[in-house]
Amino acid sequence: MRVTVNRKAHFNAAHRLYNNEWTDARNASVFGKCANPNYHGHNYDLIVSVTGEINPDTGFVMDMKVLKKLIREDIEEQFDHKNLNEEVKEFKTLNPTAENISVVIWNKLRNKIDQNLDLSVTLYETPRNFVTYNGG
Amino acid sequence: MRVTVNRKAHFNAAHRLYNNEWTDARNASVFGKCANPNYHGHNYDLIVSVTGEINPDTGFVMDMKVLKKLIREDIEEQFDHKNLNEEVKEFKTLNPTAENISVVIWNKLRNKIDQNLDLSVTLYETPRNFVTYNGG
Amino acid sequence: MRVTVNRKAHFNAAHRLYNNEWTDARNASVFGKCANPNYHGHNYDLIVSVTGEINPDTGFVMDMKVLKKLIREDIEEQFDHKNLNEEVKEFKTLNPTAENISVVIWNKLRNKIDQNLDLSVTLYETPRNFVTYNGG
Amino acid sequence: MRVTVNRKAHFNAAHRLYNNEWTDARNASVFGKCANPNYHGHNYDLIVSVTGEINPDTGFVMDMKVLKKLIREDIEEQFDHKNLNEEVKEFKTLNPTAENISVVIWNKLRNKIDQNLDLSVTLYETPRNFVTYNGG
Amino acid sequence: MRVTVNRKAHFNAAHRLYNNEWTDARNASVFGKCANPNYHGHNYDLIVSVTGEINPDTGFVMDMKVLKKLIREDIEEQFDHKNLNEEVKEFKTLNPTAENISVVIWNKLRNKIDQNLDLSVTLYETPRNFVTYNGG
Amino acid sequence: MRVTVNRKAHFNAAHRLYNNEWTDARNASVFGKCANPNYHGHNYDLIVSVTGEINPDTGFVMDMKVLKKLIREDIEEQFDHKNLNEEVKEFKTLNPTAENISVVIWNKLRNKIDQNLDLSVTLYETPRNFVTYNGG
Repeated sequence: MRVTVNRKAHFNAAHRLYNNEWTDARNASVFGKCANPNYHGHNYDLIVSVTGEINPDTGFVMDMKVLKKLIREDIEEQFDHKNLNEEVKEFKTLNPTAENISVVIWNKLRNKIDQNLDLSVTLYETPRNFVTYNGG
Repeated sequence: MRVTVNRKAHFNAAHRLYNNEWTDARNASVFGKCANPNYHGHNYDLIVSVTGEINPDTGFVMDMKVLKKLIREDIEEQFDHKNLNEEVKEFKTLNPTAENISVVIWNKLRNKIDQNLDLSVTLYETPRNFVTYNGG
Repeated sequence: MRVTVNRKAHFNAAHRLYNNEWTDARNASVFGKCANPNYHGHNYDLIVSVTGEINPDTGFVMDMKVLKKLIREDIEEQFDHKNLNEEVKEFKTLNPTAENISVVIWNKLRNKIDQNLDLSVTLYETPRNFVTYNGG
Repeated sequence: MRVTVNRKAHFNAAHRLYNNEWTDARNASVFGKCANPNYHGHNYDLIVSVTGEINPDTGFVMDMKVLKKLIREDIEEQFDHKNLNEEVKEFKTLNPTAENISVVIWNKLRNKIDQNLDLSVTLYETPRNFVTYNGG
Repeated sequence: MRVTVNRKAHFNAAHRLYNNEWTDARNASVFGKCANPNYHGHNYDLIVSVTGEINPDTGFVMDMKVLKKLIREDIEEQFDHKNLNEEVKEFKTLNPTAENISVVIWNKLRNKIDQNLDLSVTLYETPRNFVTYNGG
Repeated sequence: MRVTVNRKAHFNAAHRLYNNEWTDARNASVFGKCANPNYHGHNYDLIVSVTGEINPDTGFVMDMKVLKKLIREDIEEQFDHKNLNEEVKEFKTLNPTAENISVVIWNKLRNKIDQNLDLSVTLYETPRNFVTYNGG
C-alpha cells in the first residue's frame, strides 16, 4: 500500500533568465523579456510529493509536520524574498529556469528524506507555467 | 487509447488523529493538536480517477453520471457531515489520517468499478495537504 | 485616498449548529445534518479587510506583518484545530453559524485595530458558502 | 534528468454529445441533457505537458514561448468561440466528449513537437470533470 | 448587525451575443467572435449574496438550504445545459451578455426573497470576466 | 440599472519596499525582508472594475475587448517582466507597496475610461495579500 503525500509551500523571488557564457545580445534573443537585467519576479508555488508505505502505527507515510519544517528551513527560508541569481549559490552559474529550480529543490530535499521514500517536486512559476521533476 | 477520467467531489467532516493502542500522552506527543479529543474538521476534496479504453459508441471511458452517483452514494453520503472516528465504521480501529482515508475510499470504490478500469483516488485534507492512492 | 488592504488566513475546526434553548428534535429539524451531535468540520478561510488612508512614509494603510500577527494570535491560535462549540468561549451559548463566527471575529479584532481604520471580515465555511460582516 | 513542463491554456466552446449513428431517442437516453440539440457549452481549460531532458544551454525542456504559440495557433484558434460539433472537422463524425477532445488535441500537437519529448494533455470540461491522455 | 451571506452555484450554457434589431454584419462587427451564429459556451459561476439581520434564534440571515434550493430550481434548472438565446424566454429579445444575464437572474430571485433582505448577484462568464448587479 | 463589469489581468514583476528619504537601516527595520536591496518579485493579479448603466443596444456597460486592450497596453506592457522600482517612472520616488501600485494603476486608467463610469482596481500581490482602491 504505497501512498503519495503532498505538501504545498510557496516563496516569492526575483530572477532573470541568463546564460553567463553567452553575450547579452544572445541572452536577449533567446530569453526575450525574461532576460531583463533588472530582474522580474514570481510567486512560486511548490508541491513536494513523497511516496511510500503507510506506517501502521501512525497512519502516516511521513509526518507532515516534519516535511513542512524541512521545506520551510531548506527551501522557503533560502529562496523567499531573495534574488535567485544573486543570492542563491546554486544559481550563480546555473540559469534559474523553472526546470533548473525544480532540480535544485529536489537535490536539496533528496538526502534529507528517507531513501525508502520516492520524491517528486512540482514548481509553479505562474498558475499557467509549471514543471515536475522526480529524479528520473 | 487509454484515457483517465477524473471526477471531483467533497465532504465536510470532523476527525481526530488517534491510535487507540497508545496512551493519550503518546497520541498528543505524536499527533500534536491533531489529537485534540474534542475533534477538529476539514472540507475534504476528493478526486476519483478512472483509466481505461474509450468506448467507441459513447466516447466515454466511464459514464460520469454513473461515477458521480457512485461517489455520492458510497462516499459522500457515508462521510459528509459526519465524525469520521465515531460514525464511519472503518475508522473505529483505524486512524483517520488522509493516507488511511484514501485507502478506505479506494477499497469502497474498487469493487463497484469494472475491473478493466484502473482506479486512483486523491484526497485533499486542506488545499496544502493531500494524498494519492492507486492500489499499488 | 482610502485604500482597503486584505489579508487571508485560515483555520480548521469542528462545530455543530445547535441552539441550546431548543430541544434536540427542533435542532435536528431546523439544522438538519449540521446539527449532528458528533460534530462535523470545515477548513475555514478568513479574509480580514482594513480600510484607511495610505501613510505617506510607509506606503501602508496598515503594516501587513502586524495584521498577520494579530490574526494569528487572536483568531487562528484560538480557533484552529478546535471544537468551536466546546472550546471557544463565545460559542458556549452562541450558535456557531458562519454569520455568528464572523461577528465574533470582527468583535475580537475591532478593538485591536486603530479606530480610524474601517474593518470588515469575510469567512468562507466552504468555497460555496461564505459571509461578510463589517460592523454595520 | 527528465523534467515535465506544463502550459495551461483555455478556450470557450459549445458542444453537444451525440452519436450520429444512433436515433435521437437513444442519444437522449444515453447522454441526457448533454444531448440537447440546441447545444450547451463550457470554458475548457487545457494543460499540455511535455517531458524530456533539460537542454544545458537554455535550461529549458522546451521553450515555453514556442509551446504557447503552438497551443494558441493549433488549438485555441481552432476551438475558441466555436461550436465543436459544427465547426471543428474532427467532430463531424466523432462525439465531442472530453475523452475524444483530449485525443484530438493530443494528435494535433504530437507531430508538431520533437519526438524525443513525451506528450500528455489534460482537459478540464468543468472544474469537477477532467480527463488526461498521454497517447498510451 | 447586518451580515451578507453568499452562496455559489453554477451552470453550463451556450449563447451568442446578438442584437436582433441589427444586421448580421453589424452584429459581427460589434461582437466579433462572440456573435458566431453557431454559438459558443461557458461554465457560468454564480454568487448570490443576501444581506440582512441575523435571526437570533437560528443564527442565520437566511437558511442556506432554502437559498440553495431556490437557486437550483429558479436558475440552475432553467439555464443549465441550455442554449440561452434559444431556450430561455428572457433572451428571446434580450442580448445574453453577462450584464443582462445578471439582471435577469436578479429579477427572477428578487420576489422570491424577503424584501427586508438586500440582494446582489455576481456572475462569472469566465474566471477573468465577471459582473455584479445589486438592483441599484 | 447600474452593473459592475470586472476584468482580470496579471503581470510578473520585481520590486523592493524602500523609502528613499530613509537610511538603509530604517528601511530594513520597517520593511524587513521586503527591503532586500537585490529585490524579490510577485505574480500580480489585477482586477479592474467598471460600474455604469447597461447600454441597451449592446447589452454592455463597457466593451470588454476595449477594456482588455486598455489594460494590456497601459498596465501589463508597462509593468510585466519589469523591475517596478527601476523601470516604472511612478516608482522612482514612490514606494511600490501594493497600496501605492493600486493608486498608480487607478490613475493611469481613470482618464482613459468614460467619466460616467466608476472605476475600482483590486491588486493581488499574493493570493493572501491584496488591496482595493476606488479613488475614494
